[in-house]
Amino acid sequence: MEQTIRVELSETLKEKPKTDQLEFGRVFTDHMFVMEYTEPLGWHNPSIVPYQPLTIDPSAMIFHYGQSVFEGLKAYLTSDGDAQLFRPERNLKRLNRSNQRLCIPEIDEKLALKAIKELVALEKDWIPGAEGTSLYIRPFIISTEPYLGVAPSRHYKFIVILSPVGAYYKEGINPVKIAVESQFVRAVVGGTGEAKTGGNYASSLKAQEVVAKEGYAQVLWLDGVEKKYIEEVGSMNVFFKINGEVVTPALNGSILEGVTRNSVIQLLKHWNVPVVERKISIDELHEAYKAGQLEEAFGAGTAAVISPIGQLTWRKEHLVINNGETGEISKKVYDTLTEIQYGKTEDPFDWVEKVSVPSKVKHA
Amino acid sequence: MEQTIRVELSETLKEKPKTDQLEFGRVFTDHMFVMEYTEPLGWHNPSIVPYQPLTIDPSAMIFHYGQSVFEGLKAYLTSDGDAQLFRPERNLKRLNRSNQRLCIPEIDEKLALKAIKELVALEKDWIPGAEGTSLYIRPFIISTEPYLGVAPSRHYKFIVILSPVGAYYKEGINPVKIAVESQFVRAVVGGTGEAKTGGNYASSLKAQEVVAKEGYAQVLWLDGVEKKYIEEVGSMNVFFKINGEVVTPALNGSILEGVTRNSVIQLLKHWNVPVVERKISIDELHEAYKAGQLEEAFGAGTAAVISPIGQLTWRKEHLVINNGETGEISKKVYDTLTEIQYGKTEDPFDWVEKVSVPSKVKHA
Ligand SMILES: Cc1ncc(COP(=O)(O)O)c(C=O)c1O
Ligand SMILES: Cc1ncc(COP(=O)(O)O)c(C=O)c1O
Repeated sequence: MEQTIRVELSETLKEKPKTDQLEFGRVFTDHMFVMEYTEPLGWHNPSIVPYQPLTIDPSAMIFHYGQSVFEGLKAYLTSDGDAQLFRPERNLKRLNRSNQRLCIPEIDEKLALKAIKELVALEKDWIPGAEGTSLYIRPFIISTEPYLGVAPSRHYKFIVILSPVGAYYKEGINPVKIAVESQFVRAVVGGTGEAKTGGNYASSLKAQEVVAKEGYAQVLWLDGVEKKYIEEVGSMNVFFKINGEVVTPALNGSILEGVTRNSVIQLLKHWNVPVVERKISIDELHEAYKAGQLEEAFGAGTAAVISPIGQLTWRKEHLVINNGETGEISKKVYDTLTEIQYGKTEDPFDWVEKVSVPSKVKHA
Repeated sequence: MEQTIRVELSETLKEKPKTDQLEFGRVFTDHMFVMEYTEPLGWHNPSIVPYQPLTIDPSAMIFHYGQSVFEGLKAYLTSDGDAQLFRPERNLKRLNRSNQRLCIPEIDEKLALKAIKELVALEKDWIPGAEGTSLYIRPFIISTEPYLGVAPSRHYKFIVILSPVGAYYKEGINPVKIAVESQFVRAVVGGTGEAKTGGNYASSLKAQEVVAKEGYAQVLWLDGVEKKYIEEVGSMNVFFKINGEVVTPALNGSILEGVTRNSVIQLLKHWNVPVVERKISIDELHEAYKAGQLEEAFGAGTAAVISPIGQLTWRKEHLVINNGETGEISKKVYDTLTEIQYGKTEDPFDWVEKVSVPSKVKHA
């Protein structure tokens, strides 16, 4: 039986920001989705309600023991005025994998997808139309039981909020400088690195703060055990083109399995570009660089899609990649992925999921 | 200049739970302390207000990126009816060390101590008087800026809540069974293990869930790199008596520096019991056990003070320690620490800090 989602419309609608003034994650739409978990009821009362502050006891577990998970995806507006999502089932599957790791009761992925689609349909006028803009979708789960014990919470809220976001690249795709992180560790096998949970991001702030002062955009994370193998770049998965072959670190338990990562791999295979998932050490990368074989490097994630790496600094040595310019493969992957996301090119993989806007949804 | 704390008293007071029905962390007192951080003001408006739910935007960083820290200490009632704290400055120093790691602006430790004392004084009637009971004090800081970017928040709340708690040992101090954790990792050097931040506890839930099903009280955490060196037990520091000498893992960056740990070390030195902080591997422990030299083992933390380990299970082998009974040193440390905390014996280290209850504080 399909669950219905209760809808309570907001009485007043906010003014929408001007497209050219959009930032990332600062403005939110008029409504949000909320669903509660309590025992023995389980997940219940799925509702779309006016966007509003949460009222939570100061002893709620989320404030103390950080039991939480989240996701991030986008809704794109096509030139026909349709709203569409990019592989949303993968985000919801990953949300449930994160739930397992964090001892949070799993959600019904079908219901969650339906909730996202209904919310996006209702807020369709919030999807900005300009090049590179989109509506960022943030599903998240927080533990709300008022109890100071270190144990899984027995109350949760699953919430989805939406934020119109500007183009990541205001002046075209642009390579960044990255510092190889030598002191801090993002994640370790046996920890929570492959889950999307708040603690991973809280622990990453310090490293970011240190390198930002030195002019770097992000850090390249090495593994927590040997500080040798490459894991991710900032909050993105990472790819290197070495002597004609594209290499990305294999999933090992401490790397987040990105939707973009998976899409890049599929695209490259589709194009018959050699691509391999394997362990890759920073020493190997350095060797390849010295041999003139490090041809491209880029991060891959929902926010930027592709973020070319123009320079990598390791032990004070600056490895300048592809003259600090965006590589050919980086550019081709970026163009193709964004064209699929915005419905400008065919979608051979069936990645795009249309959001149908029922005529009964009224727009202000 | 000393800052004054604004006080807004609650109009209605709650009914206090019966002493014999006290649990841990489920009931909270009538008031709480709150202080806000915004830029450029910094920390401001320190206030004692009625205990109440927090109203926080769903986009607030705490719900997404887990930027938070906390502390835990207790107020004890002496037989003279005085309220006293145990080494509270150490908790506030540790809170600021945690703040540094989590990119949270440091607090004024003096003001925080004053806030705790004034709050405890106001709520003095909430400190239960029965043997082993106390008033648990939970200072914590959460990031409240409504922004979905992975960056340090620019708004925070520092809050202190109080909860009357029952005796940890209802039927006398009692040894527990512990499983050596082989799959999951609590912390790794370069991560956040030495900070008291939510993510560490969220990531520990899974291991605890798995072993609890097999009848163990807690896990013994090994280091995240070699899975070999002993770090902590559950949410406590750990001590072993091996052939007459007490050994505890040295602080290495992934172990929390416990106030109880430090007090145990000082007590043992005071008694001329050999005590050493050093790396200790699970293999060494196993060897000592086989040689009949593993004489005692115990966890140490604010909640239980001392938690004797009666059995340690490693690779399916059950190491029964001291016949599963509480060891002599464990007992002596437990008795002395609790006697100091409750003001039943002299305090040669000046650990105890009295809370003065001004006559103008009215009790219901
Ligand atoms: C740590 C981390 N790695 C990788 C990614 C990329 O994943 P995706 O492509 O699904 O956005 C993200 C973010 O989204 C992330 O937070
Ligand atoms: C992870 C961890 N280790 C050790 C301790 C013991 O510290 P303390 O003695 O200060 O309570 C605690 C808790 O308080 C803890 O959470």
